Amino acid sequence: MKKVLIIMGSKSDYDVVSKAESVLDDFGVERETRIISAHRTPEVAAEVAGAAEENGFEAVICAAGKAAHLAGVIASKTVLPVIGIPMKTSDLGGMDSLLSTVQMPKGVPVATVAIGGAENAALLAIQMMGAAHPDLREAFRAYKVKMDEEVRALDEEMNA
Amino acid sequence: MKKVLIIMGSKSDYDVVSKAESVLDDFGVERETRIISAHRTPEVAAEVAGAAEENGFEAVICAAGKAAHLAGVIASKTVLPVIGIPMKTSDLGGMDSLLSTVQMPKGVPVATVAIGGAENAALLAIQMMGAAHPDLREAFRAYKVKMDEEVRALDEEMNA
Amino acid sequence: MKKVLIIMGSKSDYDVVSKAESVLDDFGVERETRIISAHRTPEVAAEVAGAAEENGFEAVICAAGKAAHLAGVIASKTVLPVIGIPMKTSDLGGMDSLLSTVQMPKGVPVATVAIGGAENAALLAIQMMGAAHPDLREAFRAYKVKMDEEVRALDEEMNA
Amino acid sequence: MKKVLIIMGSKSDYDVVSKAESVLDDFGVERETRIISAHRTPEVAAEVAGAAEENGFEAVICAAGKAAHLAGVIASKTVLPVIGIPMKTSDLGGMDSLLSTVQMPKGVPVATVAIGGAENAALLAIQMMGAAHPDLREAFRAYKVKMDEEVRALDEEMNA
Amino acid sequence: MKKVLIIMGSKSDYDVVSKAESVLDDFGVERETRIISAHRTPEVAAEVAGAAEENGFEAVICAAGKAAHLAGVIASKTVLPVIGIPMKTSDLGGMDSLLSTVQMPKGVPVATVAIGGAENAALLAIQMMGAAHPDLREAFRAYKVKMDEEVRALDEEMNA
Amino acid sequence: MKKVLIIMGSKSDYDVVSKAESVLDDFGVERETRIISAHRTPEVAAEVAGAAEENGFEAVICAAGKAAHLAGVIASKTVLPVIGIPMKTSDLGGMDSLLSTVQMPKGVPVATVAIGGAENAALLAIQMMGAAHPDLREAFRAYKVKMDEEVRALDEEMNA
Amino acid sequence: MKKVLIIMGSKSDYDVVSKAESVLDDFGVERETRIISAHRTPEVAAEVAGAAEENGFEAVICAAGKAAHLAGVIASKTVLPVIGIPMKTSDLGGMDSLLSTVQMPKGVPVATVAIGGAENAALLAIQMMGAAHPDLREAFRAYKVKMDEEVRALDEEMNA
Amino acid sequence: MKKVLIIMGSKSDYDVVSKAESVLDDFGVERETRIISAHRTPEVAAEVAGAAEENGFEAVICAAGKAAHLAGVIASKTVLPVIGIPMKTSDLGGMDSLLSTVQMPKGVPVATVAIGGAENAALLAIQMMGAAHPDLREAFRAYKVKMDEEVRALDEEMNA
Repeated sequence: MKKVLIIMGSKSDYDVVSKAESVLDDFGVERETRIISAHRTPEVAAEVAGAAEENGFEAVICAAGKAAHLAGVIASKTVLPVIGIPMKTSDLGGMDSLLSTVQMPKGVPVATVAIGGAENAALLAIQMMGAAHPDLREAFRAYKVKMDEEVRALDEEMNA
Repeated sequence: MKKVLIIMGSKSDYDVVSKAESVLDDFGVERETRIISAHRTPEVAAEVAGAAEENGFEAVICAAGKAAHLAGVIASKTVLPVIGIPMKTSDLGGMDSLLSTVQMPKGVPVATVAIGGAENAALLAIQMMGAAHPDLREAFRAYKVKMDEEVRALDEEMNA
Repeated sequence: MKKVLIIMGSKSDYDVVSKAESVLDDFGVERETRIISAHRTPEVAAEVAGAAEENGFEAVICAAGKAAHLAGVIASKTVLPVIGIPMKTSDLGGMDSLLSTVQMPKGVPVATVAIGGAENAALLAIQMMGAAHPDLREAFRAYKVKMDEEVRALDEEMNA
Repeated sequence: MKKVLIIMGSKSDYDVVSKAESVLDDFGVERETRIISAHRTPEVAAEVAGAAEENGFEAVICAAGKAAHLAGVIASKTVLPVIGIPMKTSDLGGMDSLLSTVQMPKGVPVATVAIGGAENAALLAIQMMGAAHPDLREAFRAYKVKMDEEVRALDEEMNA
Repeated sequence: MKKVLIIMGSKSDYDVVSKAESVLDDFGVERETRIISAHRTPEVAAEVAGAAEENGFEAVICAAGKAAHLAGVIASKTVLPVIGIPMKTSDLGGMDSLLSTVQMPKGVPVATVAIGGAENAALLAIQMMGAAHPDLREAFRAYKVKMDEEVRALDEEMNA
Repeated sequence: MKKVLIIMGSKSDYDVVSKAESVLDDFGVERETRIISAHRTPEVAAEVAGAAEENGFEAVICAAGKAAHLAGVIASKTVLPVIGIPMKTSDLGGMDSLLSTVQMPKGVPVATVAIGGAENAALLAIQMMGAAHPDLREAFRAYKVKMDEEVRALDEEMNA
Repeated sequence: MKKVLIIMGSKSDYDVVSKAESVLDDFGVERETRIISAHRTPEVAAEVAGAAEENGFEAVICAAGKAAHLAGVIASKTVLPVIGIPMKTSDLGGMDSLLSTVQMPKGVPVATVAIGGAENAALLAIQMMGAAHPDLREAFRAYKVKMDEEVRALDEEMNA
Repeated sequence: MKKVLIIMGSKSDYDVVSKAESVLDDFGVERETRIISAHRTPEVAAEVAGAAEENGFEAVICAAGKAAHLAGVIASKTVLPVIGIPMKTSDLGGMDSLLSTVQMPKGVPVATVAIGGAENAALLAIQMMGAAHPDLREAFRAYKVKMDEEVRALDEEMNA
């Protein structure tokens, strides 16, 4: 089963997070999206992270802003790879979210993508699942080809 | 009972954290210092934070560096006020620790002091306990007077 | 008496500061809000800070932006715990306010919350008063439960 | 076959990179370490990245500093997940390496770990390979338990 | 032949890049503008960079944002001077683009201009071509005079 | 009377501050150096600032680090021009001191010099006093000539 | 004669700079405002700076953004005190302007005010001229009183 | 004649600047190194910049730190391409030098290389001169090949 768990720290993150959902949908990967706050619902966070593996998820994507502890908190409770999306913030532009997500101490990594990089979080999950799911690897290879073609088309169009 | 719980994320933080201990000792405040990692020992963190109030602590001081989630994680599990000491880091100087500690979302505050500000963390705990413990308030008043006198003495000495 | 003094450096800070008022009102904590500039009305600042304790306040919340000296100046004149809200600024996003508020020297702590974190400033004051006012501690415990329930509800709604 | 390709941009990165090697060795993961510069040996970079999959690697770890293009350049040429280690720099502390590594555009993610986070890069690779290699997943689970025990032991020792 | 190759990483960069085109047009310098992504179309990037010299270009201008690898990747494949325009970004203001462009390692320089500095990129190309094309040097000298006169005129107008 | 008041927030600032003393001595300007903390000795700060003008000082130089409120606090209590020296800090390099010193709100300026720029603080005071003391203006003119000659000499020596 | 020279690097700075004019007008200080670019009209800059003293100016205010060299360039050619206003920039918020203005090397100080701090630049010039012009000193004293009264009035109004 | 003018703002920059000299020597490019301060010797700066072209220089390399105005000041007075080396600073790591050098306004570009990037400054000058001096272009091509071979050799050695 190809299934990814997406967790966002706040409902307001959904505009960004939904782009990760779209990518996973395009690749035929099942996904479940949860609103869980590392700080307001710590028990839910611990429980959901602790059960993610046995619930069949193969990767977890966490989106959070400011003092973005969500990805780290989830990573502390699962053996699955955890991908962090630092959310843009209105005051510091997301530098706070980025540093809070990426600067994890030894032993508990978070695979961090760009500020607001929801699509890349999904693609990274797909790449990670590629070893166990050869079809995903092929689909990602096709995605790269398509992306290449699209840029080439834009380039040609510009110089037409 | 005047008692403060100190938690540090790593043994290497003790050089800084011990300064908080000294201040608390000077004020006759009981304290217990623990090494607990938000990411490596999440169950201990949850358990200790959850029991802090019934164990008689009146405030919690947390020292952590890099993606410093410790104070936030502890704050999520206790009604006690939580004070965060962002630790200096060798690469970003502690900017990562500071933002990870202070930029907490609505609902779960962390009272953040300066990077490496262990003495101030202890003093802040003492100020917080002042309402319930008039002797601490008086002791802090005396501390301020003494501090004032010390600076005046240095000033006079310089101009002697 | 449960009473908090709120000081803002400029009238324009009121949009943010009023959120702290609302939280205190919700918890039944008395509050008084003053406009006092550390730089334009230094005598008022010194006087109000010096009298805060005998006027029955148990904590002081200060909101200021740019070279945000207000919290530090107030803290220098009172034994009460002082909470600083660094205001967002239009040019540096509030990084200036944050560093000016949090990086206090040894001896005079300011309990700093996130940039613009007015609600958390109020909640932190409530947590601090918890030791002396058991009803506030219970109210904060209930607040945490409610917050937890709200996030769970949003989560369920999303997956309904 | 469990095999990870490690690429460093400069020989001087080896002190850090060797920590990733040690972790992989501890988990019984084969690894090959290469010195390849995205800018000085672009053909080698393209060739090695392009052949990584068919050479049996399941993940690539790239360590580079300053304008750290290595991970992005490798990621552009492989469907394998690419993990980036931003190296600390002597002038900007690694902020340049971090932003150059993590802020990847849509379509080509780099799983970024902390500045200098070589151990975590290896652990992340191990987590990624967990789906296809259940033994690695179990080994990582054991690693987490051991890490937890070590911190608990330090904590007990301190309070003995 | 006076000819400059302009490459932008994304079609959305054209609003800025077109200002470089205008400047080159004003100086009678031929130019070709391409949309090439270092990460999505790495083969095109390598091919176009590798052929730039024999295609008669004398300088290459690259505009890219975020983890802006484009200029560095192009520079790795050509002996022509490469000018980098770091694009402004919506979250970090372009600090990411700037550091990714300018902090190149020894051996592969990128002549970096200001964030969004497309006109200056073109002018720099013109200055570089001045040695081989005396007419361009003279034209640039005239441009400097005109610029000087325009500012003097604005100044006089203000004080008229 | 040509007299400058120098205030430093901590005795440890004296290594830097003494360079301002030397410059003032060289120009024959009287000076008095005080150790006064805006936060630990607020009454002394207010008193000394309030009396600076009638004590014959023509400018005040303040050196402080971290949340450097000293210059602003002094400026709030005097009509004399106040010059701020942001001190280098061990964690953030002095960025905190700089922003705390320079970002003053409307109405209370602090003439800020470079991080650690003690000589320039003294020179700026001398420039400010130039209007009232023509001899200082001439001395500063001579200083500029000498500085020019020294650099020219170094240049010649290098090319000798 | 009380006269201040104001120089702005670009006509677009006038919205900010005009606030300095208003303050000077309120204090009855003569002023002349020029548009001079350190980079586009270097001869005018050198000439105007070199003649400022004999033209009766007592201070120079310079407003410039980005790589803001204007104040430093003017300061290199005059013995008058030079005040720098770092202009806010659309990408880096003015951090570039601030550092380019304030971090002057030994020997050539620029009295830097806050980003966009035009009023304070004018007030600082007035403070500087206070020694030679007692009426300005008195006017500034009155200004401080009025500022104090205004804030007190706002405070009273709020609590009325 | 292949000749490059190197200007450094301070004698202390020579350790870094001498690396640019070595590179130019290796390529057989004549060079002259001057110590000229934009702020302390503005007339020399203007004069040397103004005469650089007629003295046969084809490019100018400027190294300066802090508020690094040197490259911009030189660029304002010559039609030659100017390359800026931002020097590392002890407090801000060179971020001040970098922004002061690279963020040049429209009309006066400075080709900025990495902080402390003296070798690359020289290589960039060589690339710029390539159009007029085919032998330099060939030499740079050979340099790239050699660099490629060196990295390949290190790589092979490591895996031998």
